[in-house]
Amino acid sequence: MKPLLSLERQLHNLMEWLAHYGADREGGVTRLLYTPAWMKAQHALFERMKDAGLAPYFDDAGNLFGRLEGTERPDETVLTGSHVDTVRSGGLYDGALGIAAGMTALQRLHEQFGKPKRTLEVVSLCEEEGSRFPVTFWGSGNMTGRWSMSRIPDVADDEGVSLAEAMAAAGFGPDTHRPCKRSDLHAYIELHIEQGMVLEKLGLPVGIVQGIVGQVRLTFEVCGETNHAGTTRMGWRRDALAGTAEMTLALEREAVAAGDPFVATVGKLEVAPNVSNVIAGSVLFTVDLRHPDAAALESLSRHIVELFYGIAASRSLRLSHRQWMHAEPVPMDRQLLAELEAICLRKQIGCHPLHSGAGHDAQIMSAVCPAAMLFVPSRAGISHSPLEHTDPADMAAGTEVLMELLYKLAY
Amino acid sequence: MKPLLSLERQLHNLMEWLAHYGADREGGVTRLLYTPAWMKAQHALFERMKDAGLAPYFDDAGNLFGRLEGTERPDETVLTGSHVDTVRSGGLYDGALGIAAGMTALQRLHEQFGKPKRTLEVVSLCEEEGSRFPVTFWGSGNMTGRWSMSRIPDVADDEGVSLAEAMAAAGFGPDTHRPCKRSDLHAYIELHIEQGMVLEKLGLPVGIVQGIVGQVRLTFEVCGETNHAGTTRMGWRRDALAGTAEMTLALEREAVAAGDPFVATVGKLEVAPNVSNVIAGSVLFTVDLRHPDAAALESLSRHIVELFYGIAASRSLRLSHRQWMHAEPVPMDRQLLAELEAICLRKQIGCHPLHSGAGHDAQIMSAVCPAAMLFVPSRAGISHSPLEHTDPADMAAGTEVLMELLYKLAY
Repeated sequence: MKPLLSLERQLHNLMEWLAHYGADREGGVTRLLYTPAWMKAQHALFERMKDAGLAPYFDDAGNLFGRLEGTERPDETVLTGSHVDTVRSGGLYDGALGIAAGMTALQRLHEQFGKPKRTLEVVSLCEEEGSRFPVTFWGSGNMTGRWSMSRIPDVADDEGVSLAEAMAAAGFGPDTHRPCKRSDLHAYIELHIEQGMVLEKLGLPVGIVQGIVGQVRLTFEVCGETNHAGTTRMGWRRDALAGTAEMTLALEREAVAAGDPFVATVGKLEVAPNVSNVIAGSVLFTVDLRHPDAAALESLSRHIVELFYGIAASRSLRLSHRQWMHAEPVPMDRQLLAELEAICLRKQIGCHPLHSGAGHDAQIMSAVCPAAMLFVPSRAGISHSPLEHTDPADMAAGTEVLMELLYKLAY
Repeated sequence: MKPLLSLERQLHNLMEWLAHYGADREGGVTRLLYTPAWMKAQHALFERMKDAGLAPYFDDAGNLFGRLEGTERPDETVLTGSHVDTVRSGGLYDGALGIAAGMTALQRLHEQFGKPKRTLEVVSLCEEEGSRFPVTFWGSGNMTGRWSMSRIPDVADDEGVSLAEAMAAAGFGPDTHRPCKRSDLHAYIELHIEQGMVLEKLGLPVGIVQGIVGQVRLTFEVCGETNHAGTTRMGWRRDALAGTAEMTLALEREAVAAGDPFVATVGKLEVAPNVSNVIAGSVLFTVDLRHPDAAALESLSRHIVELFYGIAASRSLRLSHRQWMHAEPVPMDRQLLAELEAICLRKQIGCHPLHSGAGHDAQIMSAVCPAAMLFVPSRAGISHSPLEHTDPADMAAGTEVLMELLYKLAY
């Protein structure tokens, strides 16, 4: 029998190995749903799960599971994992770490304690980011009924390939593998990188996610009057860009005043005609608002829209807006949170409660079973970039906590 | 002998006729340097000048002149006119009106008073806008030595055609017609639309241009840190777009405080990565500053740059800038201004002294001879648009004043 690797080394090796699938020139990883890089990764994970003693299978959407069947309650599945897809030129950790941690945890539990009472599964979810098709959470969504194989969205990628075509070309789709929809889930636990700086600043290895923030996204169009930058006096202008600047600053001021955990961002802005010597006639810009409390999000969002209309009116600008996304905050399961906190305390692993400012599969799973998330630090808070990094010691700390909770739930 | 048309009707007809050359789908006019539309316009004007008794000729650059040779001082030329080229989908008046007014004035003076003592010429300048090639004032520049046929700039249009090729294809270039450089200019008088709202707001038909503003144009690059809009707390952000918004508003505030005639504009702005859920990592934006007083322009420009660096520093943003245009203010000839004012007073034509916020050929000509400009109102201040409009009564008022000054200088 070969000697057990340290948990740190085992996780590090698995992450390095997985990063080869979709490795890109920028030093990052690009695994877009149903592309060759994605397929190679899922099939390699299939083999690796088999080698680790975790009976692998796909569902129709392309989600990959590695299973340890329960001896007493085989129909109650404790699930862990995360997503295998990435953004374009993403990092090595976002999504992948949750899969590696889940595989490692199941393998170690199996080696140490044998078969679980409840079924344990690790999942490599086929898609979360929505970076190839404008469809997020395709993997977890098909498992929970948010999406369905019987009504595949009629969307296409940048090359005009439809989601249905791409899925079929990858060998997935209705009745190709096991059905996606699950009614056996007992709990879902996801380990993920924080994608923020809270844990790093606190110097703690584990974050216990209290909930996932609600999101409101809006697009505003400011209309003024295109005019000659040299011949139009300041007092006669209806400058759409100056008005937008005032709104952008007002948004920042309101967000700072509201305080953590509220965040507000103007990330996208397009000026027309966008010429140096012409006063901007119109500006289109987006606003992204997030808060873990639904009422606070609603009230801040309404206040900001009113504020913007006031600014527009004071400058004789026309303003219109459209809210194109509204996701309610999703609290994580109270009991699982308490278990996680108790485990950290018992094992003396430093932890901190925090909110996730980004969306995760756990929020989708929470519609059908108790769900919880663990965060581990992201260096400098960086994510969606080849510069993503998480220390092996932190990966191991998070995986230890995960393993303890899985043991508690399944053995 | 056919009855004389009223001046209004004559100008209106000539403008309508000229607008056919380069008429575009948007209801505007597009005559880019050396294109077929431009060539047809210049050759049609050649024929029309001949019919009007104004001996026409081209110079090597493609400037078209209609000449009434002086009987006593033929080598002292009093020149009037403007540019025949337009921006893409420009209006019917910008440039064209100065040519129409000049042709009409010369024809009428000739009919009424016979040959002038000094030579009178009207010019249809080949290019002022720089809308096909990144070269402004190519027409007047070749006449004054700012540009020269012996060193044609190595520039190309959007299709990759070089200026030299385009010129040759249109039948112009070194030694094809008369030399461009002029040493016989006694004065240059240009009638042009105001491209602003001063005359319209005052309800006056004629503006006497005191000078052309100086211009400074700069590009700023603001560098912050690209980050996740959901997971990065407000206090931890280095948001390049929020910083740019603060600079844009500060610029507006400074310009309003400095008061007329200073104008300052952020017209062009590019955000990266420009994604709704990502904090902007960098922003590139332009600043256009104009003032008729060189010292004031210099001091305001310096102050604004300092202000921007202060804002960047307070937000831990990196800032860099490049000044890519600096044009000194150009005062018009004092004596010609006094003559114009006296003429308006005598003829009881309402006039107002103002500055040109835009560049004009008159500023180039003023390097080699006394130069003056007359403005007539632009409806709603609109220019560089198919919506340009000037009332025939205003065109006629301006042309009357022009005609009087030409008479005074040449007869």
